Amino acid sequence: MAENGKKHWIGFDLGGTKMLCVLFDHKFNVVASIRKKTKAEEGAPDSLGRIIDMIERALEEGHVEREALAGIGLGCPGPLDLDNGIVIQAPNLGWENVEIKNILQKKFKTAVAVANDVDAGTYGEYRFGAAQKARCVVGVFPGTGIGGGCVYEGRLLRGKTGSCLEIGHMMVSNGGRLCGCGRRGCLETVASRLAIAAECAIAAYRGDAPILQQLAGTDIAKIRSGTLAEAIKSGDKTVEKIVRQAAKQLGLGVGNIINILNPDIVVLGGGLVEAMKDIFLSEVKDAVSKRAMPAFVKAADIVAAKLDDLATAMGAAALAAESSEHK
Amino acid sequence: MAENGKKHWIGFDLGGTKMLCVLFDHKFNVVASIRKKTKAEEGAPDSLGRIIDMIERALEEGHVEREALAGIGLGCPGPLDLDNGIVIQAPNLGWENVEIKNILQKKFKTAVAVANDVDAGTYGEYRFGAAQKARCVVGVFPGTGIGGGCVYEGRLLRGKTGSCLEIGHMMVSNGGRLCGCGRRGCLETVASRLAIAAECAIAAYRGDAPILQQLAGTDIAKIRSGTLAEAIKSGDKTVEKIVRQAAKQLGLGVGNIINILNPDIVVLGGGLVEAMKDIFLSEVKDAVSKRAMPAFVKAADIVAAKLDDLATAMGAAALAAESSEHK
Repeated sequence: MAENGKKHWIGFDLGGTKMLCVLFDHKFNVVASIRKKTKAEEGAPDSLGRIIDMIERALEEGHVEREALAGIGLGCPGPLDLDNGIVIQAPNLGWENVEIKNILQKKFKTAVAVANDVDAGTYGEYRFGAAQKARCVVGVFPGTGIGGGCVYEGRLLRGKTGSCLEIGHMMVSNGGRLCGCGRRGCLETVASRLAIAAECAIAAYRGDAPILQQLAGTDIAKIRSGTLAEAIKSGDKTVEKIVRQAAKQLGLGVGNIINILNPDIVVLGGGLVEAMKDIFLSEVKDAVSKRAMPAFVKAADIVAAKLDDLATAMGAAALAAESSEHK
Repeated sequence: MAENGKKHWIGFDLGGTKMLCVLFDHKFNVVASIRKKTKAEEGAPDSLGRIIDMIERALEEGHVEREALAGIGLGCPGPLDLDNGIVIQAPNLGWENVEIKNILQKKFKTAVAVANDVDAGTYGEYRFGAAQKARCVVGVFPGTGIGGGCVYEGRLLRGKTGSCLEIGHMMVSNGGRLCGCGRRGCLETVASRLAIAAECAIAAYRGDAPILQQLAGTDIAKIRSGTLAEAIKSGDKTVEKIVRQAAKQLGLGVGNIINILNPDIVVLGGGLVEAMKDIFLSEVKDAVSKRAMPAFVKAADIVAAKLDDLATAMGAAALAAESSEHK
């Protein structure tokens, strides 16, 4: 392990739409951060080169030598081989079986830890955010999809194939809409940003969401969480109804998770929650109280994430620190 | 801890309909076992006295002195205070806040461990049955209700208020039938023995299940798992359809659990599965393959329990041994 003064960590959030590279000091204070869109305009498929470039720039901006870097933690979406640090598939990056851990280890001569992005976000909230010191933390992050993570007695709960808590693919209605996974009735089909955007686009097309129509039109790719929040704030009642209904459905899913894991705390994070905290907290709490076992409802705090979009990078950096301490 | 030759354990399954008290030697071989109906005909509310009596009789039958008893493990239904070994509520026993651990500890001067019955059953299958050495085991026990348990890296997963994996109260349809918990659409309302019995009683009343009608009539209390199995074997097609549909629904619930915990193995146990192993295994596997993430489906074996109705007593005894070793 590097000496105290020398110990810096990189936390990297390799998101579907944006990449965030953060340099932390040994107390996990932010020293520098670099943000980029995942799909660069330059169109080059060299995302790997851009990741390396971002890390180098963060070190530069922070005036930190490569030798003072104690480790790199990456939070990645999609199926991962956690043991070997391989991204099995990341369509947005055009990646298949990329040995990201090996590559970065060789390049920066330092320890590299790879984690699922939502797992890293949940761990971040456990270590530094809204769920510090809790025995059993469930993180639920609705965004383009809906991810989940669980920190149980200080460690991330892991499944047989690496990740777990695939909350987005929990069945909440028998039958129901077609999901990206090929199944029907998944929570994602009714409570993700995409599901909300699609319903709001229909409302806008019909003339029922005039402000949203003005802000984003009917293109679901342009209906972001912030746009939805703005439309609601400016008086689009139909948009608010749609978002509340989706949040309620999310709450039923959270209720199911509470019945299964009986956690101390549920942290709601991700773009939708960040943008519309009050709506999501109140609707989820309401649905949970109707859905989960009364004793479990009483036992579980339901709170908003505190670290916002820093959660995954911070959690990933902390996981890198954790794993290098255990070597 | 008692010396090797002296080390015997009692495992007690305090079920809703029957009580089973088993005396094990230090290798967890059965030395003696006593079985009784939970609701004794004598009607006396002195179930505590009967439990003590059963333990004493098991020791007697096994020719084991009280001093050679290293510990007692109890698997109990219903809400428990695990830390203090208190049965908070057990309607079938007429119990409320019974300090069973303290009482037995004083009476037998030995260590007593109290666990949820399904947790104990899952632990039993992990230690001695169908799921030995697996990293993450999920036990699903459909019976009068539907219970679940999880052994994760050798230890029972515990919730904030003690138990967890309330699989029976997972929502599988929005709306749906009224559950005993006061909510609607719980898995128990479509896949428990009671749900199946109610549907079969209607079929029998209509004349669609002549063999069941002969065997048990239309009283759902008399339509036991064994009766259902017998009716199917003798040709009641409608009964088979109803059971298969319930098993399919159970499979959807198991699929949800697999999406959340991504386990190595799922053990199906309990009365219904014991009586109709083939139907339950095939329908659950089929539904899971349609419901859960393909990588998770591939990772998770789905098997029938091996210990049958000994699982809870064995698991409880092993938990007592575990906890006394950690003292």
